[in-house]
Amino acid sequence: MPRPGEDELIARYFAPLAGPGALALKDDAALLAPPPGHDLVLTADAIVAGVHFLPDDPPGAIGRKALGVNLSDLAAKGADPLGFLLTLALPADWTEAWLAGFCSGLGGMARELACPLLGGDTVRTSGPLSISVTALGAVPAGRMVRRTAAAPGQAICVTGTIGDAALGLALARAEAGLDPEPGWAQALSAAERAFLLDRYRNPQPRTALAASLRRHAKAAMDVSDGLAGDLAKMLRASGVSGTLALDRVPLSPAAQAALAATPDLLPGLVSGGDDYEILLTAAPDGLDALAREAAALGIGFAVLGEVRSGPEPLAILRNGAPYPLSAGSFQHF
Amino acid sequence: MPRPGEDELIARYFAPLAGPGALALKDDAALLAPPPGHDLVLTADAIVAGVHFLPDDPPGAIGRKALGVNLSDLAAKGADPLGFLLTLALPADWTEAWLAGFCSGLGGMARELACPLLGGDTVRTSGPLSISVTALGAVPAGRMVRRTAAAPGQAICVTGTIGDAALGLALARAEAGLDPEPGWAQALSAAERAFLLDRYRNPQPRTALAASLRRHAKAAMDVSDGLAGDLAKMLRASGVSGTLALDRVPLSPAAQAALAATPDLLPGLVSGGDDYEILLTAAPDGLDALAREAAALGIGFAVLGEVRSGPEPLAILRNGAPYPLSAGSFQHF
Repeated sequence: MPRPGEDELIARYFAPLAGPGALALKDDAALLAPPPGHDLVLTADAIVAGVHFLPDDPPGAIGRKALGVNLSDLAAKGADPLGFLLTLALPADWTEAWLAGFCSGLGGMARELACPLLGGDTVRTSGPLSISVTALGAVPAGRMVRRTAAAPGQAICVTGTIGDAALGLALARAEAGLDPEPGWAQALSAAERAFLLDRYRNPQPRTALAASLRRHAKAAMDVSDGLAGDLAKMLRASGVSGTLALDRVPLSPAAQAALAATPDLLPGLVSGGDDYEILLTAAPDGLDALAREAAALGIGFAVLGEVRSGPEPLAILRNGAPYPLSAGSFQHF
Repeated sequence: MPRPGEDELIARYFAPLAGPGALALKDDAALLAPPPGHDLVLTADAIVAGVHFLPDDPPGAIGRKALGVNLSDLAAKGADPLGFLLTLALPADWTEAWLAGFCSGLGGMARELACPLLGGDTVRTSGPLSISVTALGAVPAGRMVRRTAAAPGQAICVTGTIGDAALGLALARAEAGLDPEPGWAQALSAAERAFLLDRYRNPQPRTALAASLRRHAKAAMDVSDGLAGDLAKMLRASGVSGTLALDRVPLSPAAQAALAATPDLLPGLVSGGDDYEILLTAAPDGLDALAREAAALGIGFAVLGEVRSGPEPLAILRNGAPYPLSAGSFQHF
């Protein structure tokens, strides 16, 4: 069956996702009048089949993830989304059904989070499906939340729950026959399995929290490469040290059930990738407002430790005692 | 030999290319204060080994091309570059020597055209090397040169020379042993061969002409998929027709030598890809200024035909008579 050429592909699948600045995707470039008095915040992340997602993941979930991982970065910087550009490298065996599903997921997230498609490029590749997204956001001038602004006396906090996506990936790999089923999977209900798979496949960018972060967070980044490693990175970038109390790391009921069945999972939960939560520091006077505003949005919020002065590595504690965890990052690269 | 991880890679190879807004590539996102009173112009293009360049092309040329094809789009819109984001998918066999060469070429073009690196992502792929660039430019508010503004009575013009890159690609493929050497290659001097190869490998974005295009061009696009097909596309997008006089298509001395040896080359010259020149329309009162300003910049400038009313397809003429050329585009996709 003949497949559409690039122009037809654009008209059929991408134009429906486009914002006004995209000029109906009929020009060489997109046009964006930046909001006056604002800074632009720019981020680019690529995801590749077999590295960042499984080739057999549902196409809609891949579409949501491609945009979601970028919106997560914008949210962590306190930025409201303006739009995105997409480059899609399609392998020889792509199908229209796959593309329709992909665009449906991508478009759903674009609409939900008010981040329209502005432009992009579709190319062939002899390799795996690869998707690169550049997302643009805006913050009032001078108000981007930096990664480098953690300072002693601030509390270290995180949104949502941690480790679900790492468990979801293990379940997805077992479902795809890539790995044996993990022992803890037997301890989970069908609903708990579905929850963990969804947390892996459908990151929920914390876009709704961006305005609160601008007001009350001192430093922030998104947790994509594992909580412990990302926290170590943020503290290092800020030239400070700090503590992480593992007992306070927020776990979903599904992750708690898995951990109860296999206590050795703990290091994996705090160093697995793809959480797409927000790690932040807050001064004592901003902490209550942040917790209240997160709760009002239905977003979990937990205090994990505190920023300390000094060049020492992050102190990881369990029940007050040092816990032997190397604070390495999950390596997507 | 161990290769550097992503953080080391960023510090060693990418940070030297970064502009102030990149925050030393140490944050989740880049920060850009858009120039007041300007619109942003945004474009994204990806290039893939084996599709848009040959895997054995010199790494510096690949770096230049990855940025250059995007700067060519900005130039065609009359936009001055602000910066770019890069996502690089590296195959398993990448080497530091390759990456150093790539960044040297990329950084050279970024410096020459004042378009610093703002951010990006480096990922692994099991497939071919793939490079996606999003470039941002600025135009005074409301002044972007559209593809859709061609109107009857305007002249159809092009910068530089056409067809060199298509010939250069044929030479490069022969050099790489992918195709037999074309017959016309024997008619070329070593300098002419080198010129054509360079035109294929090192596109020269017409960034210097952006301000002139804002002042004097009515419609414009860059020629990347073949002159005839791209012109047909621009006229269609503008809802008009027009003429293309093949006798007036500017050819380099090297392309003239090849064409003299093999007259059948003509269709390939005007439908081959990778010219990265600017195709534009101008009203009679702007034509002289454009020609003068291009000449002052050392950029060739030629009038090829005129825009006409009506829905007829582009009329391609040779010596005043219809020439049987299907105005299809070079298909990168």
